[in-house]
Amino acid sequence: MTELRWYGWGDAAKTYALNHRPDAWKFLCAALDLGGEERFPPCDFDSINLRSPRIDETTLLMALATDLRPTSTPAEAFVRNDKRVRVLHAYGRSYRDLIRLRRGEILNPPDAVVFPATEDQVVRLIQFCVDKNIALVPFGGGSSVVGGVEPRGERVTVTLDLARLNRLIALDAVSQTATIEAGILGPDLERELNAHGLTLGHLPQSFEFSTLGGWIATRGAGLASTKYGKIEAMTVSARVATPRGIVETRAAPATAAGPSFLQLVIGSEGTLGVITQATMRLHELPKASDYRALLFKRFGDGVVAIRDMLQSDIAPATVRLSDEDETRSFFSLREASTGWKGFTERIGIRAVTALGYSFERGALMILGFEGSADAVSAEQARGLAVCRAHGAFDLGHGVARAWLRDRYETPYLRDVLMDRGVLVDTLETATTWENLERLHGKLAAAIADAAASTGARALVMTHVSHCYRDGASLYVTFLARMARGKEIEQWETIKRAATDCIMANGGTLTHHHGVGYEHAPWMEKEIGARGMDALRAVKQALDPNDIMNPGKIFQ
Amino acid sequence: MTELRWYGWGDAAKTYALNHRPDAWKFLCAALDLGGEERFPPCDFDSINLRSPRIDETTLLMALATDLRPTSTPAEAFVRNDKRVRVLHAYGRSYRDLIRLRRGEILNPPDAVVFPATEDQVVRLIQFCVDKNIALVPFGGGSSVVGGVEPRGERVTVTLDLARLNRLIALDAVSQTATIEAGILGPDLERELNAHGLTLGHLPQSFEFSTLGGWIATRGAGLASTKYGKIEAMTVSARVATPRGIVETRAAPATAAGPSFLQLVIGSEGTLGVITQATMRLHELPKASDYRALLFKRFGDGVVAIRDMLQSDIAPATVRLSDEDETRSFFSLREASTGWKGFTERIGIRAVTALGYSFERGALMILGFEGSADAVSAEQARGLAVCRAHGAFDLGHGVARAWLRDRYETPYLRDVLMDRGVLVDTLETATTWENLERLHGKLAAAIADAAASTGARALVMTHVSHCYRDGASLYVTFLARMARGKEIEQWETIKRAATDCIMANGGTLTHHHGVGYEHAPWMEKEIGARGMDALRAVKQALDPNDIMNPGKIFQ
Repeated sequence: MTELRWYGWGDAAKTYALNHRPDAWKFLCAALDLGGEERFPPCDFDSINLRSPRIDETTLLMALATDLRPTSTPAEAFVRNDKRVRVLHAYGRSYRDLIRLRRGEILNPPDAVVFPATEDQVVRLIQFCVDKNIALVPFGGGSSVVGGVEPRGERVTVTLDLARLNRLIALDAVSQTATIEAGILGPDLERELNAHGLTLGHLPQSFEFSTLGGWIATRGAGLASTKYGKIEAMTVSARVATPRGIVETRAAPATAAGPSFLQLVIGSEGTLGVITQATMRLHELPKASDYRALLFKRFGDGVVAIRDMLQSDIAPATVRLSDEDETRSFFSLREASTGWKGFTERIGIRAVTALGYSFERGALMILGFEGSADAVSAEQARGLAVCRAHGAFDLGHGVARAWLRDRYETPYLRDVLMDRGVLVDTLETATTWENLERLHGKLAAAIADAAASTGARALVMTHVSHCYRDGASLYVTFLARMARGKEIEQWETIKRAATDCIMANGGTLTHHHGVGYEHAPWMEKEIGARGMDALRAVKQALDPNDIMNPGKIFQ
Repeated sequence: MTELRWYGWGDAAKTYALNHRPDAWKFLCAALDLGGEERFPPCDFDSINLRSPRIDETTLLMALATDLRPTSTPAEAFVRNDKRVRVLHAYGRSYRDLIRLRRGEILNPPDAVVFPATEDQVVRLIQFCVDKNIALVPFGGGSSVVGGVEPRGERVTVTLDLARLNRLIALDAVSQTATIEAGILGPDLERELNAHGLTLGHLPQSFEFSTLGGWIATRGAGLASTKYGKIEAMTVSARVATPRGIVETRAAPATAAGPSFLQLVIGSEGTLGVITQATMRLHELPKASDYRALLFKRFGDGVVAIRDMLQSDIAPATVRLSDEDETRSFFSLREASTGWKGFTERIGIRAVTALGYSFERGALMILGFEGSADAVSAEQARGLAVCRAHGAFDLGHGVARAWLRDRYETPYLRDVLMDRGVLVDTLETATTWENLERLHGKLAAAIADAAASTGARALVMTHVSHCYRDGASLYVTFLARMARGKEIEQWETIKRAATDCIMANGGTLTHHHGVGYEHAPWMEKEIGARGMDALRAVKQALDPNDIMNPGKIFQ
């Protein structure tokens, strides 16, 4: 079993090596006014002091079922309250979370973590929490970047880790759907489906450390969502254990049976109940795929090319367009090439530059098609024609291959950068094509200004991804020198300015990260006071004692 | 202005002529054991007695705005309570509705019909109804077949006809979206959009007499939904005037901001408030289109062909597969061909038959592609290859052209058949591919058995349409000899049996007709008791006095 990094991302044995990327650190030091030599490692795990658990193990075990006994092996235990498990379940994986973990500031950890193996145990646990007025936090992979899994409030809190609810329950190869338990991790899910020649096609950056239930609860999107859709489009039906009982929606390709209860469950972030299983739409494993990189002279040219493709019924699996700042950073982060490869690369760069393109001022697009061989070749031909019409230069497969290889790795880079005193965070929104470039400019400026107000020069990089006929998401990565000792205040200043800017300029509060508690203050701006009343009424109907993930979405 | 048929479908000046379809009536008389000569015209309009209006015009006018005065021209009036307008707003257009209209049984007509011209007037009217405890029924085109617009209960009822709220408010040609008032009729909407080279692509059979707001309120689907999606996929955002105030959702291509309030509004059937406007996703007017008919030897072969197409990312605008009974009926209803055309047609039929196909036992598919010229030719080539692999015989464009020409006409046929003593109704559901043929068989049998129990032989015809990767809708038309004097009881027997069969065999309660009051008794089966609690809580939050379309969805 993978040992997780308690203060950062993913597998504790893995890291993101900067040393064979010779320009990267130099580039960042210059961009962010860093000294370059200082290191800020996390505190020592042993130095962390946690509040003692306020509920005992045996009581919880009894709540699950009377015939369960404590075991001596933590990995087999149904209930754990050791320090390690409580630290790992105290926070999600936002920048703020990692700062607090690195400092050893864990003020409100869960009192215990329960790992039920059956839906029946989930139901018992919910009932127990209702009876005892204990807060219950559903926990999938714990990769939330919006505070979705953090215990809030004064009550005793139990975290329900769904790791054991990870079975493929039924597969309908004819309809290409599968019913799957919510706690399954991305790689396990794909392995099960791939064995039947099928795929869900949901590949978020958190893929290796996030779960089906988490994706549904937060309305997630994967890197190939332009073809496969967001999780809400993939979900046929869901089963939710609420404090008032189990609700299961009917599996149908579409329905007109009133307002959509299913679309209330999707995005509910554990506030209504625990999603225990869901039936998902699948695709055949693509027989062909072609990912390549293109370079546009200007970001705006690439934006129009994407819009033209989508509005002409061309549906790439992935289309991802970096703005000039992200393009420059991407190439500065590339690995050193030596020998013949390095020589041809340098020749290639010179040729591209001679044609009037620039890795310094251009806009990089990753464009990938997947499907049957003839569909891929037909769609790609049409897609490339559109891109060429907007001045794209085809860089071939190499850069795209590197992007595909590293697509789940960049979260590891964050830990390396934080070790070196760099604030690094991402945020995202979505808007219409008409508004996209305006919002892009405003948002980058708002982040840079807010960073400046904290005394730091920001590097703000944006890409367009998750594209639709009517618009697309904007995904922003921003870096700055940490304001030491005031890391959280600095981050809050920037985050607040960015979110205010999004809401004032026609973006949606979040396209796929969810609400948690970080975005909750803006929810009323998103759906209005009466919209909030309606959602609160649903919460009240299904969870009248507010035991389910309190303090999230509804502030 | 079109004069509407008060006891039946659409334009009072139009009818569906049986006389140049020589086989049609003979075929039906044989299939349904009809004598053939009897006629059962509707009652005389003048003989209808309505309950007197229980609210006076001037009070309502004052409620809208103090500066409005009654006018002498009905067409200009903001408030009407004349008999004609009350009869036209008393019912939708279900078989049960038409039986009651023909009999002159109009027991609970609205007391007045109000035609606001602005959202502000809608808001005033809602407030007035809240203050006076008056029930308010939003009314678009009035084409509901599930009792969606019928006043229910004892309270004074005002019907809010949205006909005047029919403006295109804003068009975003870049994002291909438009913000449109809810009361616009299909043809007016398409005319406005077509002038900008755009289309919504929502073409329900009721197109000429239904509205944008009605489509959204009922989760409608158009004939080309396989490409363009159901209305819930086309809706970017909506604005709703509720008794607690106006709610407007944010326009974004997608969002992760919590449970979807927008998807509560869609399908709410006027029970939460009045949808006053919506922003919709559009498509460019297709530059090319190709509709043709194919004949399969067996219904099941066609089903597999559709599934294969959809699961191979082939998205026809329309794919519609009739079962053997519907195919036989379709050809028996065809117009007489004379001269050279008749000769070649007879030769064609003989040739098809010689190849082992049959219009008596085969399954007819209408397969239409729309889009850019190269997309249409590429997708159609792939689609036809799939169909041929499942044994399809290409009948060319003629039959498809006739279907396209007549697609909005069949509701007129219903009136002609009812004149002749024929029970005729349609119902629909959706299910997974895996379950589709099983449900098709069970449903046809349930309807035939229920009809037999009323002493009538039924003709049950089904087609697959509105197709998805994971399943499709089943659309059933059934005919039988009317049980004279017990028309409604007979119909209820069949409808109940059919709906019970759908719910017992894995179908959804409705794919695009909505719930109204006819389907309400089965809603709890669809989403469970806790799901109903959640939706009732939303209703309570936004309409605490239950003035909005009472008695619908929530029984």
